[in-house]
Amino acid sequence: MHDESGPLPPKCDFSAWYNDILWQAEIMDVRYPVKGIYVWYPHGFAIRKGTYAILRELLDRDHEETLFPLLIPEHEFMKEAEHIKGFEEEVYWVTHGGLTKLDVPLALRPTSETAIYPMYSLWVRSHADLPIKLYQIVNTFRYETKHTRPLIRLREITSFKEAHTVHTTWDEAEHQVEDAVSLYSKFYERLCVPVIISRRPEWDKFPGADYTIATDAIMPDGKTLQVGTVHHLGDNFSKTFDLTYEDPEGIQQFAHQTCYGISERCIAALISIHGDDRGLVLPPEIAPTQIVIVPIIKKGRETDVQNAADELEDTLRCAGFRVTTDTRNLRPGAKYYYWEMRGVPLRLEIGPRDIDNGVVMAATRFGEKTQISRNIVVEETIDLLETFRLEMKQRAEARAMEQIVQVSTMQEAKDAADMGVAVLHWCGDETCAEIIEKETGVSVLGYEVRSAYIDEKEGRCLVCGKKARPAIISRTY
Amino acid sequence: MHDESGPLPPKCDFSAWYNDILWQAEIMDVRYPVKGIYVWYPHGFAIRKGTYAILRELLDRDHEETLFPLLIPEHEFMKEAEHIKGFEEEVYWVTHGGLTKLDVPLALRPTSETAIYPMYSLWVRSHADLPIKLYQIVNTFRYETKHTRPLIRLREITSFKEAHTVHTTWDEAEHQVEDAVSLYSKFYERLCVPVIISRRPEWDKFPGADYTIATDAIMPDGKTLQVGTVHHLGDNFSKTFDLTYEDPEGIQQFAHQTCYGISERCIAALISIHGDDRGLVLPPEIAPTQIVIVPIIKKGRETDVQNAADELEDTLRCAGFRVTTDTRNLRPGAKYYYWEMRGVPLRLEIGPRDIDNGVVMAATRFGEKTQISRNIVVEETIDLLETFRLEMKQRAEARAMEQIVQVSTMQEAKDAADMGVAVLHWCGDETCAEIIEKETGVSVLGYEVRSAYIDEKEGRCLVCGKKARPAIISRTY
Repeated sequence: MHDESGPLPPKCDFSAWYNDILWQAEIMDVRYPVKGIYVWYPHGFAIRKGTYAILRELLDRDHEETLFPLLIPEHEFMKEAEHIKGFEEEVYWVTHGGLTKLDVPLALRPTSETAIYPMYSLWVRSHADLPIKLYQIVNTFRYETKHTRPLIRLREITSFKEAHTVHTTWDEAEHQVEDAVSLYSKFYERLCVPVIISRRPEWDKFPGADYTIATDAIMPDGKTLQVGTVHHLGDNFSKTFDLTYEDPEGIQQFAHQTCYGISERCIAALISIHGDDRGLVLPPEIAPTQIVIVPIIKKGRETDVQNAADELEDTLRCAGFRVTTDTRNLRPGAKYYYWEMRGVPLRLEIGPRDIDNGVVMAATRFGEKTQISRNIVVEETIDLLETFRLEMKQRAEARAMEQIVQVSTMQEAKDAADMGVAVLHWCGDETCAEIIEKETGVSVLGYEVRSAYIDEKEGRCLVCGKKARPAIISRTY
Repeated sequence: MHDESGPLPPKCDFSAWYNDILWQAEIMDVRYPVKGIYVWYPHGFAIRKGTYAILRELLDRDHEETLFPLLIPEHEFMKEAEHIKGFEEEVYWVTHGGLTKLDVPLALRPTSETAIYPMYSLWVRSHADLPIKLYQIVNTFRYETKHTRPLIRLREITSFKEAHTVHTTWDEAEHQVEDAVSLYSKFYERLCVPVIISRRPEWDKFPGADYTIATDAIMPDGKTLQVGTVHHLGDNFSKTFDLTYEDPEGIQQFAHQTCYGISERCIAALISIHGDDRGLVLPPEIAPTQIVIVPIIKKGRETDVQNAADELEDTLRCAGFRVTTDTRNLRPGAKYYYWEMRGVPLRLEIGPRDIDNGVVMAATRFGEKTQISRNIVVEETIDLLETFRLEMKQRAEARAMEQIVQVSTMQEAKDAADMGVAVLHWCGDETCAEIIEKETGVSVLGYEVRSAYIDEKEGRCLVCGKKARPAIISRTY
């Protein structure tokens, strides 16, 4: 679907690598004639589909999927003052229908609180109607004035999964926040993407929320990418949208709410964290093609080899694998290059000698080769893919641990944040944060950090010396 | 999620029935504060999901899914003159991003030709790149000035499946049109919805197409609902968007294209054609809940009954059914009413006497009751659901055959079109069509009719008496 370009830039040149892999692995086409708006290639879309299938599976356990409108009338959108302040410079407005000026301008949802909560207010009557736990996967829009980047900073976010829940009490909503945080951890675990969970500083929370818990991944260049947020909305929105319920004593109470979202940034993290100099590396669960069979044709044995490849494909397909045989008239090397670029976890090669010996040559996307026996090929494939997945996870974790550095001076913090995430002690005071940010030149990302890679022990604030818990700072996308 | 209202109006009062069932069966909430824009309830969304899963399954056999942007820049949108004329009064325009006026107004796609074809023009180089067969399922927008109606005439069409294909020759594109027509037939067969396929008159084809083949369903009030269209675009759009390929002789040629779409009108047809005075009736393949188990509790045997219901649910779930047990503290009658409204195909009742006798009472959504043996409950359930599906299909077909009337005079045509579809002979001449439309007061819907319910034999044009093939006329949505 595109002109062949040169080889992929090395991943150490991350920005160039990222731009090129989107194109060469057929994830997205950036040539759409509107800034910040891109086109999913079918291969990219298949990766998106596999990734969001995991997210849906996790959510469907105790949420229901639904769909609310894209267009929000100005009067609803303008109801929540804090919320507006956070979004007013980023909202696209529809002002005309055909040649007619609309009576009421319509906002393209930047997020759906103001589309959903007026309906919730109609739906909720009694405490027996609660909790409500709904989600939708939709396109949302931000008029970004900053530098845009595919999957990361977009004007059309094509794949925003947003959940919106309603509860009787603040505490119940807090429990839901914890459930959501745990769900997001499981999701990134399935993607083999290491994440750090932390609480955003007060000045960086979602407009209109009581507090925000965020999930960050560390990209290869050391900058963090916010890949999920969970917001406790308290009763802020329910007061605005008159979302009340009758409690068991017959008294009207304001409901308490949460919302939490993940966008296609999860795909950006997936691609960037696992990919290498030869292209994508995909977890078997997500890979649109899990196994590629490459027949090694030798003169005189063409039919033999083709039959063996067909039989192998049938066996693996019946076992439930997504498998394809590459029968194109290309040299094996060109085929290897092609499928490695697209991140296929396992390649099976079969030629005349393998047929004679009752074996198949297996090579994982990491280049590890094994000879496996034809008569236990399904079992061996299951093992190889599971070993491969674990290896993906370990490599990503090892890299994350290198990128996270515990620091105890401002200079160390500055140096560490240049390369990744600096973990320092911060007392929680805004003045101290300002000093940290000024001296290191990077933002305080979060506190109340939860991460398998970060020691949570107490210490002294880097600025004022008061008792403090760990916080993280980093450059961000 | 909503206040209980009175009983469903009888289906013979179709318009009232339709409005109420959307609400009572929790398909859509119409109270969203923008005209023509509605909210999917989770139950409605689950029906949508099941329906579109069938569509995806059929398409995925030889199409790839993808995703193109919603926003189309004015200059691209305005390129195809015919196309514009067809849409200019219906397009929503985004004119502002935040507080800034945009340099280039952006159209919300009413359909995606002008978003997709500029990209196709970049993607296609050689005949070896063809055919391309992609589809997407997206929201599209029409500024409807006519009376809007949920699922039928919308300002936000939330579920537009649109496929766009590219071929070397006009004939190849024609084959694709036929493939698409056959795919749509299979799709509606799976929905048990009888359809009529016909070619739209020249003046009613898609703006910019060579010709349009449409799929119509007959609604309970006799009006037809266009539930799918397939367009042969010739090289009209490829000339506009410079979509060329190099043929095997090295010569640049314009490509030929088709596009075809189905919107959530398929759900409107599904609901309307099968539903009855007691609520929805859903094909087992689509029903979010296929089987509901109602325990018939008797004093002293509560645990017994609950255990038997649990065991039954486990057995059926393991066999792959979507099954739920209604353990709410309601009388059985109230539960029957609830699940019938939601269209659950099969209800299983189990009480102490059934346990003692090793049986379960089964009732289909049509009210047919059978006693089945516990130890072959899976086999019996498979049979009952398949018999139920066939019964749905037969009932719908019988009704369609009543609604389609072969006529041979103008008066008969007028009478038949009042109640459904009149089949008459029309020579294909526009002047004759005008006379037919004037005298009957309804539109000529299509010619070159293909339908299992319509005899295709030749006759004489109702107006001019020339040799003519059957055409259909009806009132339309």
